[in-house]
Amino acid sequence: MSFFPTALENLIDQFAALPGIGKKSAQRLAFYVLSQPDEAAQRFADAITDAKRNVHCCRVCQNLTDEEVCSICRSERREKGQICVVSEPRDVLSIERGREYNGTYHVLHGALSPMNHVGPDDIRIKELLVRVAENDVEEVIMATNPDTEGEATAMYIARLLKPFNVKVTRLAYGIPVGSNLEFADDATLNRAIEGRTEM
Amino acid sequence: MSFFPTALENLIDQFAALPGIGKKSAQRLAFYVLSQPDEAAQRFADAITDAKRNVHCCRVCQNLTDEEVCSICRSERREKGQICVVSEPRDVLSIERGREYNGTYHVLHGALSPMNHVGPDDIRIKELLVRVAENDVEEVIMATNPDTEGEATAMYIARLLKPFNVKVTRLAYGIPVGSNLEFADDATLNRAIEGRTEM
Repeated sequence: MSFFPTALENLIDQFAALPGIGKKSAQRLAFYVLSQPDEAAQRFADAITDAKRNVHCCRVCQNLTDEEVCSICRSERREKGQICVVSEPRDVLSIERGREYNGTYHVLHGALSPMNHVGPDDIRIKELLVRVAENDVEEVIMATNPDTEGEATAMYIARLLKPFNVKVTRLAYGIPVGSNLEFADDATLNRAIEGRTEM
Repeated sequence: MSFFPTALENLIDQFAALPGIGKKSAQRLAFYVLSQPDEAAQRFADAITDAKRNVHCCRVCQNLTDEEVCSICRSERREKGQICVVSEPRDVLSIERGREYNGTYHVLHGALSPMNHVGPDDIRIKELLVRVAENDVEEVIMATNPDTEGEATAMYIARLLKPFNVKVTRLAYGIPVGSNLEFADDATLNRAIEGRTEM
């Protein structure tokens, strides 16, 4: 049964489609948006359109940016010989929070997952190989999540990097196995970066 | 520190401003929106603008509608002599779910709350009084939340309705005191409607 006007039902459905938002939360959010002044609702709608239009992937590291090359890749203080490979843009934020790593990143935008039909061509592995082939890279640090899919992705990429004669390391298991990189605390992440092992 | 492009930070802030959404959830939601196809993100943005543009208050009962008068107020099968007064549009949905009430509604859009500077002029009390004065109303059922603010609102409105010589009732305390109408189960709500007492 639908008691709400179509436009409201539609907005509720849009919120309910977001990850972790149930039907009841979606209703609350939709009512909240309706209770806001016109300009506030418009700013929200514009923020979605703007972000979608202006934010894209860095040509070098594939992290999200609104320029052609992101600020980390452009920075002269960053060691370009080090590439830290992560699954998601939010993982860059997690490692940057530790303030200890000073190399560059490569964002895969996913992890290999045969169960979910995510193969090597669905994530940004090719871009990493091109980058390693064309630049003077000393070390690739595999910082994918310490779960099955992250491990598989790290192993797979490490194997592909063998011919390039580059040092490939993996985050040390300071990070709790089976959890999510995003929720690791700064100290644990720092220790994991320090204790990385060759693979 | 801001690692994300401005447009993305802005979208994260917009999500974080929603009730019950923290910074980390807001990041996840923003990343999710960015990961969607252009058309999906545009549909989300349009849903907000459309809902805000098309949804407004019913001229009679103040419930949300995309027409001048809502479907409940237009229905000929509804008993127009009964008005059930609720705080929020979602409370209408809660009572409708019980499928037992067959009167009309009046949505106050809030409850009296001196702490939060919500006075009688900030909610739709005047519209209710006009409605009772100009129509043949037999009974007004106060179905505001059974918390301090809802009780105060019910008492205040009951006092204002005295001169109109209309029966004013209150939902029976089948509903657990101090909780929220939205979360009451159907059976409890039905019993509360059946056992309403004159005030």
